[in-house]
Parts: sequence; C-alpha cells; structure tokens
Amino acid sequence: MRSSRFLIATLKETPSDAEVISHQLMLRAGMIRKMASGLYNWLPMGLRVLRKVEKIVREEMNKSGAMEVLMPVVQPAELWEESGRWQQYGPELLRMTDRHDRPFCLGPTHEEVITDLIRNEIRSYKQLPANFYQIQTKFRDEIRPRFGVMRSREFIMKDAYSFHTSTESLQETYDVMHATYCNIFTRLGLQFRPVLADTGSIGGAFSHEFHVLADSGEDDIAFSNASDYAANIEKAEALPPSTPRTAAQHVMQEVATPGKHSIDEVCEFLKVSPQQTVKTLIVLGEVREDKTQPLVALVLRGDHELNEIKAEKLTGIASPLTLAPEARIKAELGVGVGSLGPVGLKIAVIVDHSAAHLSDFVCGANKDGFHLTGVNWERDATAPLVADIRNVVTGDPSPCGKGTLEIKRGIEVGHIFQLGTKYSEAMKAKVLDVNGKEQTMIMGCYGIGVTRVVASAIEQNFDENGIIWADSIAPFHIAIVPINMQKSPAVAAKCEELYTQLQEAGLDVLLMDEDKARLGTMLADTDLMGIPHRIVIGDRGLEAGSIEYKGRRDAEKQEIPVNDIVNFLKATVKV
Amino acid sequence: MRSSRFLIATLKETPSDAEVISHQLMLRAGMIRKMASGLYNWLPMGLRVLRKVEKIVREEMNKSGAMEVLMPVVQPAELWEESGRWQQYGPELLRMTDRHDRPFCLGPTHEEVITDLIRNEIRSYKQLPANFYQIQTKFRDEIRPRFGVMRSREFIMKDAYSFHTSTESLQETYDVMHATYCNIFTRLGLQFRPVLADTGSIGGAFSHEFHVLADSGEDDIAFSNASDYAANIEKAEALPPSTPRTAAQHVMQEVATPGKHSIDEVCEFLKVSPQQTVKTLIVLGEVREDKTQPLVALVLRGDHELNEIKAEKLTGIASPLTLAPEARIKAELGVGVGSLGPVGLKIAVIVDHSAAHLSDFVCGANKDGFHLTGVNWERDATAPLVADIRNVVTGDPSPCGKGTLEIKRGIEVGHIFQLGTKYSEAMKAKVLDVNGKEQTMIMGCYGIGVTRVVASAIEQNFDENGIIWADSIAPFHIAIVPINMQKSPAVAAKCEELYTQLQEAGLDVLLMDEDKARLGTMLADTDLMGIPHRIVIGDRGLEAGSIEYKGRRDAEKQEIPVNDIVNFLKATVKV
Repeated sequence: MRSSRFLIATLKETPSDAEVISHQLMLRAGMIRKMASGLYNWLPMGLRVLRKVEKIVREEMNKSGAMEVLMPVVQPAELWEESGRWQQYGPELLRMTDRHDRPFCLGPTHEEVITDLIRNEIRSYKQLPANFYQIQTKFRDEIRPRFGVMRSREFIMKDAYSFHTSTESLQETYDVMHATYCNIFTRLGLQFRPVLADTGSIGGAFSHEFHVLADSGEDDIAFSNASDYAANIEKAEALPPSTPRTAAQHVMQEVATPGKHSIDEVCEFLKVSPQQTVKTLIVLGEVREDKTQPLVALVLRGDHELNEIKAEKLTGIASPLTLAPEARIKAELGVGVGSLGPVGLKIAVIVDHSAAHLSDFVCGANKDGFHLTGVNWERDATAPLVADIRNVVTGDPSPCGKGTLEIKRGIEVGHIFQLGTKYSEAMKAKVLDVNGKEQTMIMGCYGIGVTRVVASAIEQNFDENGIIWADSIAPFHIAIVPINMQKSPAVAAKCEELYTQLQEAGLDVLLMDEDKARLGTMLADTDLMGIPHRIVIGDRGLEAGSIEYKGRRDAEKQEIPVNDIVNFLKATVKV
Repeated sequence: MRSSRFLIATLKETPSDAEVISHQLMLRAGMIRKMASGLYNWLPMGLRVLRKVEKIVREEMNKSGAMEVLMPVVQPAELWEESGRWQQYGPELLRMTDRHDRPFCLGPTHEEVITDLIRNEIRSYKQLPANFYQIQTKFRDEIRPRFGVMRSREFIMKDAYSFHTSTESLQETYDVMHATYCNIFTRLGLQFRPVLADTGSIGGAFSHEFHVLADSGEDDIAFSNASDYAANIEKAEALPPSTPRTAAQHVMQEVATPGKHSIDEVCEFLKVSPQQTVKTLIVLGEVREDKTQPLVALVLRGDHELNEIKAEKLTGIASPLTLAPEARIKAELGVGVGSLGPVGLKIAVIVDHSAAHLSDFVCGANKDGFHLTGVNWERDATAPLVADIRNVVTGDPSPCGKGTLEIKRGIEVGHIFQLGTKYSEAMKAKVLDVNGKEQTMIMGCYGIGVTRVVASAIEQNFDENGIIWADSIAPFHIAIVPINMQKSPAVAAKCEELYTQLQEAGLDVLLMDEDKARLGTMLADTDLMGIPHRIVIGDRGLEAGSIEYKGRRDAEKQEIPVNDIVNFLKATVKV
C-alpha cells in the first residue's frame, strides 16, 4: 500500500476522553473513530488489524473441525421467550419492534438462534458431535460504554456452539476448543492464561476464561507460583487454614470506640492489626414461603474481601447477593453497621474459614460505639456455618496444592463453557439416540471478543512512541521510509523495486510515498502505528551500499547491505 | 472437507413457501434456513459461497484503490436528522431507542455515517479523491420480504462512497467503479449488463445499475439489438415518432359503449386495435399556494403503459405520482374513469408522443357509457403539452440511434451513483481547496448486494437437478464420490490420496465419506448442491485404471486414466 493512497489519520495529541492506553493509541494511530457512545468506525488502518485477527481465528476454528455459519443480528423475541431470557435479560438487551409491531432484539449472543436452528436440522445421534461458529456483529447496550472498543456496545465476536449426546463428547470438544484457543492467542502474539471461571448466569458446569495479562485489565486472576493453576478471583478457592487454632488467652472485654466505624479506624484506635479483627456484613437470605427475606450475617477477617459469587451460591442466601438496607439492620438488630459483630447475634451467621480460625479477635459489640476484644469462637460466639466466602489474596496457598497464589490483572478475551442442557432442555432440542429414543442434546459454547483482542494486544504491547504489533496481526509488516523520494530518482527507484519485491514475497508493505512528507513525521507515524519493521532509504545509504533497518522493539538501527535487504526481511518477518 | 464432518442439509421436497427457483434451491441444497420473516441463517454450505463472493468483491475493490472500513450497524438519529432522511425515510428504516431513550436506527445504507466520518478526517483537497468501502450487514424493514435472500430484511451489502473536489474527478472514480463492477460480475461468472438507471430518491445526477439477466428478475431492462445501449425501463427514453402524422380522414362521432370500460373491452366492442385508441389517466398536480392540488390528465396510446418515474418529473405533477381518487374525478369532471378522454377536458392535459402522433383515434367521450371515434388532435382536442411519459416496448427505436429495443428481465445486483453534494451540502462536509477556501465535497456511491448475488447466480444457473455453480464461487470445486469406501481398502486409499493431492493443488474438495451413504443419494446431492466437478471412484474403475469424471453441465461422463486425474482436474477447474 502507498501511503499517498491510504488514509493515515494519526493524531499528535492524546484525545482527552480516552482513559486507557489502547483507546488512546487506537485513536492516535488512526485505527478507529467514535461515531456515538460505544459505537466506533474502523478506519482502514484499524480494519487491517481486525481482519487479520479474524483470519487467524477462522483458520484455527476450521482446523478444529468447527463449521462456520452466519446467523442474523436481529432476532425474534419468541426464541428468547422460549429460553426464558426475554424476561431475565436486563436492559443490555436492545429490544425493538418492527413495522408490524412484532418484538425483536439485537443479538448479544446466539444460544437461542443456534439451538432453534439445530433442533430443526439435526435429528440423529449419528450427526453429533457438531460444532458451529460464526464471526459476527453483536450488540450489548452497556450502561457505561468505555475504553473504546474494549467495552463498546457494538462489537465483533466469534461465538461457537457445540452439540453432543454425552458429557464425555462435550468434554472432548471442550478440550479441543481449549487447545484451539491456546493456538489462536499464541498466533496472535499475546501473553495469555486460561483460567478457571465461574459459569455465572449463562449456566452450565465448567468454564474457562482466557485472559490477556495487562495492568489495565478489569479482572483479578489468581496464579500459583509453582504450577499451571490459574483462576478468576471470582472462582479461586481459598483453602481453610491447615494449622490448628491457637487457644484463647484473653477474656472478652467491651471497649468504647466512639466514632470508629471502619476496620481501619478501629484498628488504629485499638492498636491491633486488621488480621486480628473480623467484620460482619448483613445480607438478605432466600425468600421464604411467606415472601419475607430473613437477614444473614457474613463474617470475614478484617483484611479480607467478600467474594459475592461464592457467597450467593450458599444455601439460604439470596442470589444475586444483596446487602441489607441499613434501616432494616438498625430496626431488627438494634445497632448500626459500624458496630456489628457475631457475639450474641440472633440471626443466621456464616463465617469464613480464615475468620473462624482466629482467637482473641476484635469485633463490633452489637451496641453503637462499642467493640469487643479478646473474643473467641465457641466460648463467646457460635460459628455454626463455616465456608469459603472471601477473595483469595497474594500469599494464600494455591488450591492445587502447589505453591502460593499471586494476583495479576487480566483482560478477558475468550470464554469457553460447558452449557449442559440449559438451552436444549428449555427449547426441546432433541435427537434420537442409538435406541431410537429422544434425547435432549448437551451443549457447549465458546466465545472470543474479536474487537477486544485488538485493544488488548495494544494494552500488552506499547511504548512511549506508540503501538508495537506482533507480525501476525500488524496492519503492515514493513514500512519503507524514503528520504527525498521526490528529488532523488535513485531513492525512488530503489523504493519502488523493494516495494514490489517485498510484496511478491507475501509481505504487507507500506510505502511512505507522500509528497513533501517530513522524515521525522514519517518515522513518528510508523512508530505510532506500530509497524514492526522499518527500513529507511536515502541517497547516502545507497551510495554506501546499505539500507537502514530498525525493528519496532529494537533499541538500535542496523545497516543492511542493499543486496541482502530482501532476504534479511523475509527471514526477519514472522508471517 | 469430509461430508462426515460437515452439515449436508439437503432436502428432497421443495419447500412450499419458496416461490422463486433460487429460494427453493438454496433451501433444498442446505444453504440457508429461515429464522423469521426476512431473516435467514446461512448454513455452512451457503456461507462458503457467500464468503467467496465477498472475497472477489474485496479483491477487486482493493485493486481499484478503494480503502476498506467498517461502520456500525446501529446509527444515531442525529446524523439522519442532519441529512433530513430521519423524516423522509419510510418504515423501511427500523428505528429504536437505547436504554437511555436516545433514538437510533439500523443502517439500511451509510451515506450519513461516512459523510460524518470524512468531514472530520479529511480537511484538504490534497487528500482527495478517496473511495471508502465496507462489506457489512444492513437492515431494511421490507413490508413484504420475499424470495429468500433475494429480498430479505437483513442482508450483506458492499457499499462504497467516494469524495471529490471536482465533477471530473467524480467521473473518473465512477468510471473506475464501472470497470471494477464489470470485473467483479465477470469473475463471479454472471451474465450481466450495466444499464442506465434513474437516480431515484437517493438523488444525484448520473447512475448505472448492474443487472443479472434472469426471467425471474423484478426489473425490465431495455436493450438495443444493435449497440451496447441498455437502460432500466424506468429510465429508457421513448423517442418521438420520426414520421409526420397521417392526415385526418374521419369525422368525430359519439358512440354508445354500454358497460365497456377497459381498453380491451372498448376495442373488442368497436373492432379497433388498442394502437388506434388513447387512454386518459387523471393524476394529482403539484400543491398550489392555497394547498389545493389540481387534477392533470395524462394521455397515452391504448397499448402503452404509463412510466411513473418520467411523469412525476414533469413540471406541474406531484411527486410521488398519485392517481386522483375516483370520487374526485366524478365530482369535478362529471364522468367515471372508464369514459375519460381528452376532448373538451377542462384541466391540464399532457399527451405522450405516441398518442399525439395518432389520427382518427378512439377515446372516451367524457360521458359515462360513450366513446368517440375518428378523433383528431387540433381539430377535436388540444394537445398543448407533448412529452415522453410511457414505458418503451419491444420494437421501439433505441434512443442511442442504432437498432430497436428488446426488453428482458433483470435482477439488480449493483448500483453506482453520482451523488453530487446532496449529503455533503446538508452535512457541511467541506475541504480546503487549492486557494485555501472551503469547498463542499462532491460524492459518489457504489453498492453491491452481496447476499443477493448468491441468489441471482442461481436464478441464472440451474437445471432440473439443482444449482450449477461457477468454479469461482462454488462451495467446493470437486466432489469425490466413493463406491463402497467402507468395504474397499483400494477405493478408500485412492479417495484419501486424491483428497490430499487436490487440496494441496489449492482446490476445495468435498470427500463424500459418510458411512453407508447410497451412491444415488450422493450423486443427487452433489448435483443439487451444484458442485461443478465430480469424480466417482470404485473398484471396477480402479481395476480398469480409470476414474469417472462429470462436469455439472456435461451431458456425458468421461473416463480419465487414474494417473492423469489430478492434472486433468487442475487444468479443468478454473480457480
């Protein structure tokens, strides 16, 4: 491509409304432009990257044996009513009516459509297993779209859905998808980790997320420092302490803590560490037959955080997890939230393993302005239910049994699920089994956020000058930057010759042939746009028989003999 | 691809709700499935064709110098309000509101979005001309979606938009697009014609449609039998008769024609040919200052049809063309529509050239139940305004001056427009010209109905056994059909060997390796699916050293020596 015939839309200034680096650099490198909140135009430079990502995803999905299909963006409400999601799905589902007043939505995902398609097409176990995927535009009406294409409303997703007659077959395809995702993210040049994940509201038994590791990630991932174990912090198990609890040494005492509500305030006032305290949160229990929801107390060590996902799965707790209104706590327990504690509490109490392991701890006295010290379980308070309800923290033993946990930030770019029969049951998607009997199909689903991959690759690969693309997804592999191309016939001829030769070698080349472009601007642009390889061609070099080469990550330039440059680049670029 | 790992979803019966052959065959060949009215799923077999069409379109657009972009499907109302189309566009524009109650629509076309994008990105004449295209999902809420993907609501379109500072530059790009479209449709293996077209409501000066010729087409195309001239019948000019009018021979007489209203009834009753009669249509004139719309009479020869597009462009006629309500005609003219005529009519009269050329003709008497014979212009009726307001018919002289016209049916698959400044003016899309002065950009736009191309290729290429794909867009180039693959190791080995060799040669091969598949079913399926080349491999042939080959259009099979088959196929398939 000649830059004179291509829209190079680089910006010098960082747009003020872009918070994360990928959003800033995608705007500055002229890859995307905002059309409206959460809606982006992909400019030619950006689209070249997007199409390369799509191509890698498609090639690997085809290799895995999945079949590509294409389902509509606009979906009829009836299918969503069959699955029950027309009611369940919140305002992220953009609903509309057509000219005949029939209700439709824009597809945020396609479980309903594929299940409807396959229940009509596949009738026999002999046609299974089968895995179908599409690469297609999706829409989620995010309440607060942000970070550019990282969390936009319209985006491109690769979604796949597999169908089976046994859980063994589902596991096989799940494993194939796990391996395929590893191949995809490896080819994309990303540092990533598959992590155990919660299955969330989509349902199903077993799930992995694929995370690109980057400080700007919205998720916390727990890793073992001694094994392959990795899990989303939502899911990572906190093992119960393995040592016996220390015996009680102190008597329980009530102390006045006027105006001290938070753990930090109380600790500073009483000169104890947060690890020696417990905090008590009051949440709503499950709805009873008489429609009331009892209060339930959750007790955690002062330095730990509640894991809502773990807590809401416990029997007796309402899902989604809901903190009790302060007024109701005050009315029923006679105390404000700053002085709650497990001693003498007349409601159900669930204690985290780590809190249950404490002796001589500090907690609220259930009396405003007072705390208790020297508290001990059994002697002073009962802990009838002990469970894992906290987030793991750095240094916790790994649940795999090897090493301790570290926490890193990740960006979720892929997710694989064992769905089971959630959709096929609701939508009556059945096949005839070996014995000619109807059997509900078992399903898996597998997603990759294609547009998000582009942004997350930048989050992981940039420097102060701009983006650094991996060769596999770079918009152009090589930039040819001429010095005075318009004035020097020798430079012009060499540029044209190399432009042709390198393209013939299968490389994507950007020839910076714009009239009157300044060298400094061209170099800054190629850096900003992240072109991984750059050669500068000028009269002085040509006279000396050499061409200047610099890799985007290199600290130093190299002089390559003119006659070697094509072979050098063919060997250097990893296509 | 192995058929055992691919969804072959052929149907024996023709689905009853499919009217046209392409819709029937796309369903029967397992290419598409209906999800809801005008919304289709593309199955693996169909998507392979769609992707090949997309690839050819993309390659030729890139070759033309156009730059690929991707704009959102969901578009904000503000942009459509700027262009004025939020009000103008009818219910085909699917409108919706997001969770914050902001109005949006699903893009049926992207003039507004691209104009908004480019007015912000391109500031100088130096960056022009520039041509941007996308291949993307569009939505038009058709009142009556039909013919499968031929007229669906959601469809894929290639739309391109070019920007210029002069009409000469626009004409240059327009010519490049004209040539590019010819290349595209030629590579797609279609018989097509570029035809002059009316620019319609999208505006602009100059326009060509690209039509695939097929009897099922919804458009009538007029061709010269002696030149390249071709035009949509909406646009094709009817030349005025070149001979002088015959002198009057008869006196005008009023005759009773009780119960005879239509031209056919009157002709039969009076024993005259329709060519010797005129018919009079009453339409609404332009709105006057006092908000009333006068009546206007349009007079055509009895055997001719009104061309609404031509008529509504005339001064004094309301656009869109609207027939006057019968009650108003009766009230103001004192006669029903079956007996109208130009004699003594007290409203404006516009006469078509051919009708104005008649002498001694028959027309309604403006008196219910009566007609006039022997009517002559000037002597009996005035024809103050003579214009071209009819559709051309077979045998008319070609407007190009060479030969006469023939009429054929066509399916519109592409359309190129010289838009001019319709959108750039309304949306203030300006650049600085050579003198640093602001200038409104001049635009062109260029569309191809990608999904419709697939259907129209079938309309033009099928027989009683199914689809006949051109090699360039066939889902698979070659089908390998084994006889008793499961029982014969020799057949299995040869099939596998050829499957590998042919794929290595860059050909798309479908190996029909399903267990227990019957030969007859496999042959019928490959014909139905339109696979252009087929080889049958069996023990008997292998023993005789030959493999049976049949091209999809061939009447006879051929025996090809086993050792030649790969080279034979490489030479035969046009990739």
